[in-house]
Amino acid sequence: MTFSAADHEAMARALALATNGLESTTPNPRVGCVIVRDGMTVGEGWHRRAGEPHAEINALQQAGDAARGATAYVTLEPCSHFGRTPPCADALIAAGVSRVVAAMEDPNPLVGGRGMERLRASGIQTAHGLLENEARELNIGFVSRMTRGRPWLRLKAASSLDGKTALNNGVSQWITGAAARADGHRWRARACAILTGIGTVKADDPQLTVRAVPCERQPLRVLIDARLDVSPTARILQGDPIVIATASEDRDRHASLAGAGHRLLVLPNAGGKVDLPALMNELGRLGLNEIHAEAGLKLNGSLLREGCVDELLLYLAPILVGDAAQGLFNLAELTRLDEAVSLDIRDLRQIGDDLRLIARPRR
Amino acid sequence: MTFSAADHEAMARALALATNGLESTTPNPRVGCVIVRDGMTVGEGWHRRAGEPHAEINALQQAGDAARGATAYVTLEPCSHFGRTPPCADALIAAGVSRVVAAMEDPNPLVGGRGMERLRASGIQTAHGLLENEARELNIGFVSRMTRGRPWLRLKAASSLDGKTALNNGVSQWITGAAARADGHRWRARACAILTGIGTVKADDPQLTVRAVPCERQPLRVLIDARLDVSPTARILQGDPIVIATASEDRDRHASLAGAGHRLLVLPNAGGKVDLPALMNELGRLGLNEIHAEAGLKLNGSLLREGCVDELLLYLAPILVGDAAQGLFNLAELTRLDEAVSLDIRDLRQIGDDLRLIARPRR
Repeated sequence: MTFSAADHEAMARALALATNGLESTTPNPRVGCVIVRDGMTVGEGWHRRAGEPHAEINALQQAGDAARGATAYVTLEPCSHFGRTPPCADALIAAGVSRVVAAMEDPNPLVGGRGMERLRASGIQTAHGLLENEARELNIGFVSRMTRGRPWLRLKAASSLDGKTALNNGVSQWITGAAARADGHRWRARACAILTGIGTVKADDPQLTVRAVPCERQPLRVLIDARLDVSPTARILQGDPIVIATASEDRDRHASLAGAGHRLLVLPNAGGKVDLPALMNELGRLGLNEIHAEAGLKLNGSLLREGCVDELLLYLAPILVGDAAQGLFNLAELTRLDEAVSLDIRDLRQIGDDLRLIARPRR
Repeated sequence: MTFSAADHEAMARALALATNGLESTTPNPRVGCVIVRDGMTVGEGWHRRAGEPHAEINALQQAGDAARGATAYVTLEPCSHFGRTPPCADALIAAGVSRVVAAMEDPNPLVGGRGMERLRASGIQTAHGLLENEARELNIGFVSRMTRGRPWLRLKAASSLDGKTALNNGVSQWITGAAARADGHRWRARACAILTGIGTVKADDPQLTVRAVPCERQPLRVLIDARLDVSPTARILQGDPIVIATASEDRDRHASLAGAGHRLLVLPNAGGKVDLPALMNELGRLGLNEIHAEAGLKLNGSLLREGCVDELLLYLAPILVGDAAQGLFNLAELTRLDEAVSLDIRDLRQIGDDLRLIARPRR
């Protein structure tokens, strides 16, 4: 399938529209739609939030009668099933579009391809695969949940150039500058949930909310606390109820936390810790696409070791702290360098005075 | 003083010519010269090595009679004194040039400005400060030695993204890829000397020579070995004699090392280690401009702590090794983050699969 320059331009615009929903569509994917007739854009739309109209419906509404005979560009295959809203494929058929181009098919193996089939059955010309990589990246968490049953976990960490996140006396806040912190909150804002561990809660007592940038929806907060050591006055327990993953079955603690509205997930592993891969599956079942983790070297190490880290968002401050301070990842001692976790660097840039690096572990 | 676009172009060319001497002029600076008459380049020259003609002489020779009435662009103020060769200022006067533009004055406070004065006294128009930063950077070690009496020390290190240089069992070689290693040897090649510590010699037994890239001159090698623990069979003691800085006055060891041609510098500090700042002054007296240091976390930490590191050349391999492995800098434990060593990042790029970062401690 080859696509024209005009096709590329329209799909790029649809992707830009989809990005408007970056922080609000959860648990749905971010989707944009552009309708073009005779070289003119006649409708544009994007999905804002679950329960509200899909991108195609918004674009069709704007196009009105002009949709007849037009091409609809949509960043994700139109749905063919009744969810909270009627199927978009039917709406496109009813509007009389003559061609539908999707950036990618629905990643859900149970429904992928069905929307396109339904359109073709109505005589509509279809194609997919235009800017597909970009479309997948935009919904990397949704794709992860649909194909692997678990969210995409992005681990954020900030360290000195010599890999130190904190001094041994616990001093760690503001290791990076204001621009990097605001950038970190932008990544928090797009996540469905922010995850941390009891060690960080005890050391830093974080709120784990989005504050440094505007945000209309606060992500869910998830705390990993094997023994339910969290203090009732911890800031993470204030505000909206949170999810607490634990290995403890202590009835009193369960009752008091559940009584405060928090949701407990009891997922012990053989070592008496929280079973992290099982937790990831559970978070997938809760409809979470992207998890933003911010933790200390122990949980960072466990997440990495147990294959739960999909992406590393690492801020490096241009300072040297020295060997005595705390490191980034608590891992078993290696005897060979080829046992190290190998990463693909995806993005590297300067944010204020700091460096930001996005990398993915090679599988 | 304002300079024309043609002035800039000619000086940029002179700087490029100077760079030809990057690996060979030591202890002299790298210098280039371009002679332009009526908009035409009539002579170009650069200094190759000490004892051979200076850049101006090579350019004047190429220009011949065409130098009369021309402008000479030179990256460093022409010398006015007899060294191993006669003064270049006199040669420029004799050739009849009408204007001399220097990128920078001679950084030696005893002679800076004298060459330009001598030219002016002969009726030649002079100017300086064109692309001065670039000229200073090109001879950063020479400038350091002339102004501070000690070389510019560039510390090379290679670590994983989490700041680990080696596993605890000593495995460290090849933490970065072939491209980064070749790049590291290119930096070795431009240095006047390569410096390491006894810890690295015991752990890795390095040759400390330039091998991964072509090099017509091997830098001097300097070993810091407080107790003269170096084994006579160590590879660093093979080949050309080296300089050994020590705190030991053990006569037998002195005699055996000196007998093999090595030069000993006895520079003890109060703690029985080598006095590093005193060593830097000594290396300056030996005429060394740029020192390339490659050491382990202990000597790295000492050099940094004692203010001997002017530049950090850090290769980061896209791997995570975990907290158990060896770090980059052994420093005293900090209690406040503002006690950390703050760096200016000067350059950041990808070299093969690795990242390379050049940074300078803020003073």
